[in-house]
Amino acid sequence: MSGCQIDTNVIRPIRFFNGKCQMLDQRLLPAEEIWLDYTDYQGVAEAIRCMVVRGAPAIGVAAAIGAWFGARDIETKSSETFFAEFEKICEVLAATRPTAVNLFWALERMKSFAHANLDRSVLELKIGLEYEALAITQEDEQLCKKLGRTGEYLIPDGARVLTHCNAGALATGGYGTALGVIRAAVEAGKKVAVIADETRPFLQGSRLTAWELQKDNIPVTLICDNMAGYMMSKGEIDCVIVGADRIAANGDVANKIGTYTVAILAKEHNLPFYVAAPISTIDLSLSDGSQIPIEERDAREITHLGEKQLAPEGIAVRNPAFDVTPNHLVTAIITERGVAQGDYLQKLAELATC
Amino acid sequence: MSGCQIDTNVIRPIRFFNGKCQMLDQRLLPAEEIWLDYTDYQGVAEAIRCMVVRGAPAIGVAAAIGAWFGARDIETKSSETFFAEFEKICEVLAATRPTAVNLFWALERMKSFAHANLDRSVLELKIGLEYEALAITQEDEQLCKKLGRTGEYLIPDGARVLTHCNAGALATGGYGTALGVIRAAVEAGKKVAVIADETRPFLQGSRLTAWELQKDNIPVTLICDNMAGYMMSKGEIDCVIVGADRIAANGDVANKIGTYTVAILAKEHNLPFYVAAPISTIDLSLSDGSQIPIEERDAREITHLGEKQLAPEGIAVRNPAFDVTPNHLVTAIITERGVAQGDYLQKLAELATC
Repeated sequence: MSGCQIDTNVIRPIRFFNGKCQMLDQRLLPAEEIWLDYTDYQGVAEAIRCMVVRGAPAIGVAAAIGAWFGARDIETKSSETFFAEFEKICEVLAATRPTAVNLFWALERMKSFAHANLDRSVLELKIGLEYEALAITQEDEQLCKKLGRTGEYLIPDGARVLTHCNAGALATGGYGTALGVIRAAVEAGKKVAVIADETRPFLQGSRLTAWELQKDNIPVTLICDNMAGYMMSKGEIDCVIVGADRIAANGDVANKIGTYTVAILAKEHNLPFYVAAPISTIDLSLSDGSQIPIEERDAREITHLGEKQLAPEGIAVRNPAFDVTPNHLVTAIITERGVAQGDYLQKLAELATC
Repeated sequence: MSGCQIDTNVIRPIRFFNGKCQMLDQRLLPAEEIWLDYTDYQGVAEAIRCMVVRGAPAIGVAAAIGAWFGARDIETKSSETFFAEFEKICEVLAATRPTAVNLFWALERMKSFAHANLDRSVLELKIGLEYEALAITQEDEQLCKKLGRTGEYLIPDGARVLTHCNAGALATGGYGTALGVIRAAVEAGKKVAVIADETRPFLQGSRLTAWELQKDNIPVTLICDNMAGYMMSKGEIDCVIVGADRIAANGDVANKIGTYTVAILAKEHNLPFYVAAPISTIDLSLSDGSQIPIEERDAREITHLGEKQLAPEGIAVRNPAFDVTPNHLVTAIITERGVAQGDYLQKLAELATC
């Protein structure tokens, strides 16, 4: 099985081919471009936990590959033992981060594949799971391209578009969700300028969004998170587009911390606020956003930058990694199957099940 | 002239005594507490420009001391030459930072003192200007204490108070404006917990506000700027209090970048939004906030932290250091002469001229 060819001109955070996995260490960008090798599921779990790889769709891809690594290394010929072990491996991967639903979606898909092939030998199951992980990896980039083409009509020619965090190629199998819509608008011949929130504390905006848009020659201006309101008040932003980590059935959107604030600012300044996310981000099992678990991460992400101390020793810190934007602040949700607007409860259900 | 005694238990950013000036290097806090010596006006101007000292009232104090250094070193016995040189020195100090009006207020006060004593010898003028600079330094802390006592009734017992940037002892002659109100509430026996925005890019919240409140044993929790909306949505903030760099006649408030966003968030969550500032911050010459000049600072403040690179080389950056919060978002303005609410145009004029 050869997998995808590596084209190093195309930005992809995960390389999966010939049974090998490499991930671009997103903690080190933009100063260093270091690819790390992964060979077992424990390593992949740690990569997700410590954010070598991040972004809801990319986490899903990584989890699928991790699940295959785990399956491959189960030493048994008994299907029963195999399924029991595989379940445990998926649990370890599922426990890495709580908010992005694509993680659970990808693991469910791997488990479903296995269960759909119950009658196969363990060896055949392992081979099948590698195909499935590869399919998830490759499909994600195609989904993003479709999503981009579906939503790009919402971005006017000449638009100055604010984005928060990184919902780009680096957050997906490739191409991106929010940045995928922007890329598709540019490919459609429109002039688009991006304003990127730096996105504290992990700085996905300054380190990742700025890096990948610069690589693709899409104009990008970096600001601190607390400057978006000022830019809007000066009439320097035309619309907002962000990704999502989980979308409840009613259209409430969990995304990177600060997204909720940007949505309120957009409302205050009468600007459209768009969310771009694949169908796998929609969690119809949750009726609204209050049920989405919000990860709180380590204080050190805020008190230090690398080894540099930014706050006094022993200071109390809150570090929620996500927030929930209520549906009434969301102008439209762009998926690869279509754009939902208005009655999200009905429209998301239609899109998710069609 | 002995000046104020140095009590190292009291937090003051500027020590001015026996004709000597030391400033706490606020760029290095909280990791290092380094006091720098200043002996001439050029040094003081550079200290203001590069933010060794910052915060509108503290900048005013520093400028007054700088003006005296300049006056002291004018080598002439001719009053005419002295006044011409002194004017130039004040222009250099005035050109350091554009937004905080206290800078210009302090320089005007020094110039007014000199002009009120036109008939004195140059030697006597120099001595008089040292007294005036000392008075400005010492008065500022007393003003802050009065301001704190005036406004503390607005802070309920048990309140969880969000603040942005540092409007504390370090931003003033001592005690602080926004943090002065909090200190006065604590001294009045109330239990108050502070939530401090870290305040990118200079991190006045994490480096300065957290540091000085921790020193005074006032509970403080640090968050990133983009987390305030989340905290409000969870009901974990009861009110907001910030300082100001300039207040227009109609009550529009220029303050550290991000303040406008916090004010919009407060409105969205029905929370009071208070501004605490001395009368010297009110600029009755400007009818509204659109006339307040907004400083744009160097891109490197956002793209780097010390030597560490946070964004790709050559990226475009916007770095407005302040924004303007329109008066309709301000619940009350607390000064040392009273609290303005409602019709700011009339009430600020009354307070400023009484």
